[in-house]
Amino acid sequence: MEEHIKDPNELLNSIEELHPTDIANSLKKIYKNNSDEFYFVLKQLPDEILGEVILELPEYIREDTYGELSSEQLTDAVEEMDSDDQTDIIQEIEELDKEKAKEIFEGLEEENQQEINWLKRYEDDEAGAYMQTELFSANINEKIGDSIERLKHLKAEGELENIHQVFIINDDKMLLASISLEDLIIFDFEKTYEDIVNSDDNKYKPFKVQDDEDIDFVAKQFEQYDLSVVAVVGYQGMLIGRITSDDILDVIEQNATEQMYQLAGVNEEFEHEDNLLTTAKKRGIWLFINLGTAVLASLVIGLFDQTIQQYVALAILMPIVASMGGNAGTQTLAVMVRQLALGEIDYDNSKDAIKKEVFISLVNGFIFALIIGFIASFWFSTAMLGVVIALSMVINLFSAGFFGASIPLILKKFDIDPAVGSTVLLTTVTDIVGFFSFLGLAKVILL
Amino acid sequence: MEEHIKDPNELLNSIEELHPTDIANSLKKIYKNNSDEFYFVLKQLPDEILGEVILELPEYIREDTYGELSSEQLTDAVEEMDSDDQTDIIQEIEELDKEKAKEIFEGLEEENQQEINWLKRYEDDEAGAYMQTELFSANINEKIGDSIERLKHLKAEGELENIHQVFIINDDKMLLASISLEDLIIFDFEKTYEDIVNSDDNKYKPFKVQDDEDIDFVAKQFEQYDLSVVAVVGYQGMLIGRITSDDILDVIEQNATEQMYQLAGVNEEFEHEDNLLTTAKKRGIWLFINLGTAVLASLVIGLFDQTIQQYVALAILMPIVASMGGNAGTQTLAVMVRQLALGEIDYDNSKDAIKKEVFISLVNGFIFALIIGFIASFWFSTAMLGVVIALSMVINLFSAGFFGASIPLILKKFDIDPAVGSTVLLTTVTDIVGFFSFLGLAKVILL
Repeated sequence: MEEHIKDPNELLNSIEELHPTDIANSLKKIYKNNSDEFYFVLKQLPDEILGEVILELPEYIREDTYGELSSEQLTDAVEEMDSDDQTDIIQEIEELDKEKAKEIFEGLEEENQQEINWLKRYEDDEAGAYMQTELFSANINEKIGDSIERLKHLKAEGELENIHQVFIINDDKMLLASISLEDLIIFDFEKTYEDIVNSDDNKYKPFKVQDDEDIDFVAKQFEQYDLSVVAVVGYQGMLIGRITSDDILDVIEQNATEQMYQLAGVNEEFEHEDNLLTTAKKRGIWLFINLGTAVLASLVIGLFDQTIQQYVALAILMPIVASMGGNAGTQTLAVMVRQLALGEIDYDNSKDAIKKEVFISLVNGFIFALIIGFIASFWFSTAMLGVVIALSMVINLFSAGFFGASIPLILKKFDIDPAVGSTVLLTTVTDIVGFFSFLGLAKVILL
Repeated sequence: MEEHIKDPNELLNSIEELHPTDIANSLKKIYKNNSDEFYFVLKQLPDEILGEVILELPEYIREDTYGELSSEQLTDAVEEMDSDDQTDIIQEIEELDKEKAKEIFEGLEEENQQEINWLKRYEDDEAGAYMQTELFSANINEKIGDSIERLKHLKAEGELENIHQVFIINDDKMLLASISLEDLIIFDFEKTYEDIVNSDDNKYKPFKVQDDEDIDFVAKQFEQYDLSVVAVVGYQGMLIGRITSDDILDVIEQNATEQMYQLAGVNEEFEHEDNLLTTAKKRGIWLFINLGTAVLASLVIGLFDQTIQQYVALAILMPIVASMGGNAGTQTLAVMVRQLALGEIDYDNSKDAIKKEVFISLVNGFIFALIIGFIASFWFSTAMLGVVIALSMVINLFSAGFFGASIPLILKKFDIDPAVGSTVLLTTVTDIVGFFSFLGLAKVILL
């Protein structure tokens, strides 16, 4: 694992021994150096491996291959994929070349076409969009041994992999139970599934989710119940697919990325654009909002222009108060947003969370008030200047803690993602409170 | 799932039908309202369920239970856990009550004691710390049917669960192969494992990691190869444990949390302290560093005190330049840090990443230079003031992009986590460049 073969012929010779992920990683390196060699290898890959390799390539390379590979070769590769991957790839090709996507789609087996049409109806955040329809199910009246014979055939045809469970259904395809292979393998193969299921109702109760369930909720279920697979059911509890833990790993990683980006004012969706101007524009929108709040803060400073003119030390010191408030607030915000997402903070304990943050910010407020108070007094040889900056430090760090904790909660109450926009809202508060308290107190106390 | 039973007697009556996670969730609610009722339920739970429930409780509740439950009850509960969980719990109790931890440890079976002593030697970030020693292995010469008989007994004794694979070892316990149950179940049980393994060398090549491998690397392997379990080997390739996908889900979630916190100057480790003063102190350290950089920025402003006195509009506008630089830099930083962590950026393409960020920041630099240039010109009726702020906006957004992209790469080159400290370093740059370019240009151009 993790070694790259850079010679195309050597790579082709080792294909049998390599995992598709490793082939993709090697191809990625080859693509960078010489795209002719890349396609030389790609076009000679057997269909099944080609399909898996395409899925493991980064999106920007994958999109290039759609133009280079023939419709026939792509059709054969897609045919070998699981239904969820088939759907993703067809949709990806559609965005680049509607005609080619149609050709490939129509080249697929009837059954695959129907599955893709079904899966395409799901929204990006629905469980159904992450499920694969390939699974191993058995009728409750089936003899275990018979179903294992079926499994043998399905596996020989390459139709099934990563089977950890057999899903038990009735004649109406309603999901009744789920039996892990480790339980199945020790049973008498002459018995029927009914015999197993009746032996222990609870043990074989299936973990299932509705097809339109939010995928984030599904991910939470995986974490809470330590699942490796979950059944997806549709109309009237009919079994229609399954979601496996490897899909959920991706969901969790993706969610964390989005959240981190949102806190920083970045829209993840537009970060992988070919056209950097689009990325710049999307980031620019957040910067524009920030410009608005910065101008607002300047208007507050403008209220005190005469005070500043009389006392230029104020201009020198004022960014300190705002900066400290912004940083303390960012700390609080990160903790609140993340703990809300992880479910560690909910409405039951939101008051405790606010109290905690206010306490922490007040403790640090008093400590840094003392420090900066002394610094300012000695720097400008004016004791009262120290008092002014110390007071405004306490006020601003208090608002950082209070608003840093409240803003995400309020956003959530209005069903807005707490990570989106909370940073801008918060720095607006800490800037305005910081400048206003510092300059206002200076005007009252110093002049 | 997800419903809470708040009545203690009702909860006790439903225990057989509930998942331990659900019992823990209900108990969490009961604990909040009435801790007597909480212990009333807890003390009546059967050992096996008690063990699983304890593991699912939040740490702060769990630590309370260590004081309330007797050593005997805790010993019985711990006895039922997997080795990795046993080790964690014993270590948790050790931190609170060394004597009790010793009592519990000595009450465990000899074999468990040895495993715990072994697992305790691993560092927090080593694969060994995440593995469980409970697994299903078979000698390569064993008959499949015989090993399945063994599995039956082990499962009946409750020793094993979540078995997806049988690990094939030789007489020296060296790991040779890994066969998933789905492959095993369709084989002739009269054959030996050697017959299977010889039939296809590559298919049964085991995914394995060394026991002292970094757990983040292991998590990457799970993502790359879509694994559900990995074998852990020690000295001379001896099989010593396995890591399952549910552990990896937690690792990924935890890593994302740490990264988000680090970017915000928060130390995740100290966020769940009982003593809030400790949390405040740890956050205070980052604020202290920020205070240092803020004072540095103030010293830069101080260089231009006479300029500001002559032209107070500069004091009003200067936070805008610094704020925009800070925000643009934060965007770049979040993208760089995250993509470095996800492996999307490495040394091969780091130059491309820097170019991309500089391009984006320059595009936005010119756009916002125009906007703020007009605003400033009209606000203070001085065209040249608009020119000054526009120029410094371009300069500062350029540095935001350039340093926002370079700082994480440089930190990584020195083997420092790019998320740690990069925010402080960057805002120091954008503050100083922002104030210096704006006030410096003003001094040269305006006066």
